[in-house]
Formats: sequence, C-alpha cells, structure tokens
Amino acid sequence: MDSIPVSLKRLMEHFASLPGIGRKSAQRLAFHLLDLPEAEAKSFAESILEARRSIHCCRICQNFTDKEVCDICSSDKRDGSVICVVESPKDVLAFERLQEYTGRYHVLHGLISPLDGIGPEQIRIKELLVRLQDTEVSEIIMATNPTIEGEATAMYVSKLLKPLGLKVTRLAFGIPVGGELEYADTVTLNKALENRVDMA
Amino acid sequence: MDSIPVSLKRLMEHFASLPGIGRKSAQRLAFHLLDLPEAEAKSFAESILEARRSIHCCRICQNFTDKEVCDICSSDKRDGSVICVVESPKDVLAFERLQEYTGRYHVLHGLISPLDGIGPEQIRIKELLVRLQDTEVSEIIMATNPTIEGEATAMYVSKLLKPLGLKVTRLAFGIPVGGELEYADTVTLNKALENRVDMA
Repeated sequence: MDSIPVSLKRLMEHFASLPGIGRKSAQRLAFHLLDLPEAEAKSFAESILEARRSIHCCRICQNFTDKEVCDICSSDKRDGSVICVVESPKDVLAFERLQEYTGRYHVLHGLISPLDGIGPEQIRIKELLVRLQDTEVSEIIMATNPTIEGEATAMYVSKLLKPLGLKVTRLAFGIPVGGELEYADTVTLNKALENRVDMA
Repeated sequence: MDSIPVSLKRLMEHFASLPGIGRKSAQRLAFHLLDLPEAEAKSFAESILEARRSIHCCRICQNFTDKEVCDICSSDKRDGSVICVVESPKDVLAFERLQEYTGRYHVLHGLISPLDGIGPEQIRIKELLVRLQDTEVSEIIMATNPTIEGEATAMYVSKLLKPLGLKVTRLAFGIPVGGELEYADTVTLNKALENRVDMA
C-alpha cells in the first residue's frame, strides 16, 4: 500500500473517521472525490468550512442555527408554552418531520453519563433553567432516548423542574406501531404493559 | 424541515451525493462534522482540497500519484515487462494488497460502453499504445471486471495488441475460493468448467 500518495491516504483516513464509514467505504469515497469535476470537489470542501463558519447554537434553545435566535424560537406560530427537551439537533429534525408538533425545543447536546464523566454541568441544562425564568411554560416534554443515560437525564431534569411547579411529561415507550408482540424485547413489552391506557 | 440552516442543508446534500450514502447517513455525517472540534472539521475540508491539488495521473501508467511518475513505475524492483491493465486506481490497490504481483499497471480510467457513449478514445488506451513503443513488454494481463463492458474492453485491447506480437492474457474467472458450487450462478459455473486446468 506504499504506492498510495500521502494526500490520498490522508483523505481516506478522514473519511474512515466518520461514523458508520469503514475502511473500504472510505477508500471508495476518497476515490470518488478524485474522480469528481474539480469544481464539485472544491464545493464539497467549502460546504464543510461554510457550515462550520455560519452554524452555531441558538441563544435560546441551543439547536443549530445560522442566526442568533433560530427560526423555531423566533416564529410566532410556535407555542412557546410547551418545550420538548431532546438530546441532539438530529432529534429536532425527527420531530419536525412529523409536522404535528407545534411547541418549541431545547437541545441538551448530550446526556448525563457518569461512566463517561459527563455530569449535569456538561450538558445544556442550565440554559434550560435560565430560559424558564423569562418564559411562561406550561409543559416540558422529556424526549430523550429510552436508554439508561436517556432515562437518567429525563429523571434528573424532571426532579429539577417539578419543584418549580412545572408539568413534566415523558415520551411514551412501548410496542412500535406495526411491530409484533412476539418479537418485542422484554423491557419494551414491560414498558408497554406498565403504561397501558384506557380504551375509548 | 424549513428549520434547517441553508449551509447545513448544503452540507447534507453534498454528503448525499456521494456513492452509497443515503439521505439519513448524509444527515448523520453532516451533524457529526458540526460536532467535531473546529480544527478537525477544517482539516477534513483541507484534506479534500489538498488531495485534489496534489494528485493527478502518472505520466506512464495513468494511476493516481502526487509525482510526475508514480512509485510503481519508477521502482526498479518492479518487473517492467509485465503490465496489468485495470479499469480504475481502486483495482491497483486490490492487486497491491496481495503483495504477490511484481509487474506494473496500466489504468484505463473507464471501460468501453457504447450504451453510455464511451468509446475506445474516451479511455486511456492510446496511452498504453504509446507506452508499448518505448518498453520491452512480454505480457499484458487484462484485468478488467467480468462484466459485459469489462469483457468488451479486454477483447478490444487484446485485438489491438496481438498483431504487435504481444502475449495478452486474461484473469481467470471461476468459483471463488471458499465458495460453494451449489450457490454459483450459471455463468460463473460455465466459466469454471470452460477454463478447467490439468491437475498436477
């Protein structure tokens, strides 16, 4: 493999460092970039630099934005009294895809994880508290993932907010729609049983 | 989805335009680049620009290199009398991984494909002919893929070179080692039968 030019090797290594990209895919992607017209490859590189230059966190909800306050926080069509608390900006996208949720968000940028040395101070919980001081909020929806860290974070935030007289809810977890009981894992099935609802 | 900043959307589109990267992966990769330390993201972008700046085709074998003549063509440890003709630089890597082949290469950068409007002039066949004028070559190994285009290209080049008194060989195609006859497709099985060899 000594026949590979250094700069090509470096490009492959960069691709291989991305999540979900193995050595073989990294190689294919690097070669693809060399095969592209010069202008397109340049435009790719510049889109990385431009995104890093222009994107930062919204002063209010901490979601990625290229403005000081993001479009969701500044829109008067969104209900400011409901805040959906999520782990990452990707989760905001997932909710926005529904086109159903009309409240606002708060992005924690991580979860509490003592094993990884991540405590409550390392994620954006204080920004949520600051925000709650100036806004009239009726409900906080904890929408972190149903993992150990996600549950712990939801619990922590809930215990912090409930004494302030806030209604804190948690996303429902259970059998996915279209899923089959037979294949559900025991934890999920247990959750589904525990959180059963009265039928109409 | 209107809540996504333009520059982030552009970055996602660039990732989605890469081979084998779907919309979801593109999104994950774009967010990953925003989460990376600034210096690493910059270094990624620069590795693309640097690779494009420094890499071009070897004057002799047309493989990617950052020199005028690539390491394989300029190495005196390689046997210049055998040339392995491949479709793309990726194929050179596959052969080099063997650490068995000691000859040189010629990269066509494509295959003859009339349906896609690619004729013999569009790939680097003339560069091969020029090269054969100055070098003493004893064997040309046609190592294009066993597809219709790969076969057609191997045939075309072979017909061009044989009248010059050159020995032209083709890679063997048959049952892959470790494969099972039961699962081999008919074309492969046929090839394996046709090209059977005497046992020692």
